Amino acid sequence: MNNPSLDSIVLSTRIRLARNLKDHPFPARLSAAEKSEVNAIVRDALLDGENGLRYLEMKDLSAIEAVSLAEKHLISPEFASDAAGRALLLSEDETVSIMLCEEDHVRIQVIEPGLSLETAWGKANALDEALSGRVSVAFDEKLGYLTQCPTNLGTALRASVMLHLPALSRAGLMPRLSSTIAKLGLTLRGTYGEGSKPVGEIFQLSNQVTLGISEQAAIQNLESIAKQIMQQEAQARQSLKNDSLFVDKIYRAYGILTSAYMLSCSECTDLLSLVRLGAALDILDIPIEALNRLLTQIQPATLQADAGRACSPAERDVMRAQKVKETLQRK
Amino acid sequence: MNNPSLDSIVLSTRIRLARNLKDHPFPARLSAAEKSEVNAIVRDALLDGENGLRYLEMKDLSAIEAVSLAEKHLISPEFASDAAGRALLLSEDETVSIMLCEEDHVRIQVIEPGLSLETAWGKANALDEALSGRVSVAFDEKLGYLTQCPTNLGTALRASVMLHLPALSRAGLMPRLSSTIAKLGLTLRGTYGEGSKPVGEIFQLSNQVTLGISEQAAIQNLESIAKQIMQQEAQARQSLKNDSLFVDKIYRAYGILTSAYMLSCSECTDLLSLVRLGAALDILDIPIEALNRLLTQIQPATLQADAGRACSPAERDVMRAQKVKETLQRK
Repeated sequence: MNNPSLDSIVLSTRIRLARNLKDHPFPARLSAAEKSEVNAIVRDALLDGENGLRYLEMKDLSAIEAVSLAEKHLISPEFASDAAGRALLLSEDETVSIMLCEEDHVRIQVIEPGLSLETAWGKANALDEALSGRVSVAFDEKLGYLTQCPTNLGTALRASVMLHLPALSRAGLMPRLSSTIAKLGLTLRGTYGEGSKPVGEIFQLSNQVTLGISEQAAIQNLESIAKQIMQQEAQARQSLKNDSLFVDKIYRAYGILTSAYMLSCSECTDLLSLVRLGAALDILDIPIEALNRLLTQIQPATLQADAGRACSPAERDVMRAQKVKETLQRK
Repeated sequence: MNNPSLDSIVLSTRIRLARNLKDHPFPARLSAAEKSEVNAIVRDALLDGENGLRYLEMKDLSAIEAVSLAEKHLISPEFASDAAGRALLLSEDETVSIMLCEEDHVRIQVIEPGLSLETAWGKANALDEALSGRVSVAFDEKLGYLTQCPTNLGTALRASVMLHLPALSRAGLMPRLSSTIAKLGLTLRGTYGEGSKPVGEIFQLSNQVTLGISEQAAIQNLESIAKQIMQQEAQARQSLKNDSLFVDKIYRAYGILTSAYMLSCSECTDLLSLVRLGAALDILDIPIEALNRLLTQIQPATLQADAGRACSPAERDVMRAQKVKETLQRK
């Protein structure tokens, strides 16, 4: 888009394709041994030594490593919670992750930084073509790709963008925006935090409709609506920039992040959201990418995975504060 | 005392002597012209060109300059509020200030950093001797020095120390301590803030009894009780040092002070109190003296006096944050 004030609003783009092998029941109806068979078939189809993927059995990962992958959105939390019969194909740079025997046999996922729906879609599509060139994929002329959950039938495509919407959130506009978006066949919901209280003001916008629409149309639709939301956020940010009480809040958030001895995950996420907004508005001189990385690095399991050991919540709060301080002071 | 952990508890020592000229009614019964006469007599007695004092008519100061002198404790707030017939003798380093025609004709005040009762008393006493060598001072064999307010009769000496007692305050021990102190003939009360809520956790310990006690005895009594309070504070500080929640609070206070865009006077004073405690406990590496100076420099009138102009409260909050940031970052 080449518009810095809009670019900073999007954290990342994700494309996910669900696929199943033609002659095998859905994972829910497979034993662990049968799942391993399916995994081996897909692994042999996709591990071509060129795409940089490596194969991981989930049972070989510690619980902390598995949850950390979920925190990075590389696997689903559900996938992390039960290792039996499950495996993962993961690229070195973690932009491609393929869950094997989650709800479907194959879930291809590509994450790209910024608003990059076409790029992400191109990569996912190439992997899908590699797969379907080597195995028989369950496909019906009328229904499209067959998936365990009927809501994925058709393209079995989920495209999403992660949007940082602090100005719209603070203006109280999210509930109305979410319901408008729902009428357009998309979903807008908080990414972090539990239940109804989103923390960090980061929202995921994703498509819902997979039947009766082409992949290209779904992606274009998502991109067009994402851009409209980004415009609204950019406008709302401009008025915050002139509010000295708000500017004070941003500076204080930076002050606390660079000096606190302990930080809980939710406080840290909320403060990073403010600082990320400050960086986007050129109030603070901090690279947005470092803040994007921090949002994942401060998650409980990722902190522990990076430390290589399990830590108590109180220890984590100290480690988190340390991590944030080091990153922000280094810039 | 040469004990750094105790030294940091005392900000300053003050000695004040009230004196009146023998053949003149108390200021309350003088016209402005008669006050000027009294002021001239005292000025001529004390301006010897050696003690570095200069003579200021209060009417020549702006309201901001006058209130700033009160914020520095060089004059009383009451003295600042009405300039008519009032004058001040002030030393260059502001350790000596002599109010002329406040409640009494002459109020000699000496401020010294730290716990320095003997030094301050020595300086005040020298000025008193210079005065009484040149003018007739109202003195009664039985009642001692005569003052307008009977509570000052006798030595007319008020000695006080400013104590930073954040640990005792936070432990909720101040009300009990204050009532114990009152039984010993001394007063312990908050310095900053209005009404019952002291801010900054800085307390003034002063003597109350001026009759039937020598100056030396009053000073020794004050010093001995001050040292006991300082010991108690030092002990209470040690347990705070092991409380990681409290250490976190200190770091955050530093973070906010070095980054906020706006700071109100009371918030700033409270945060400086925490940071001063952090410096005293070697948690933060900041010279205590710089923090002591800041506690005065951030006061509303002193901020404006330093800027050389009147400013709105909102402007002051921005200037205050700027001043604090510069000082703490310079260290």
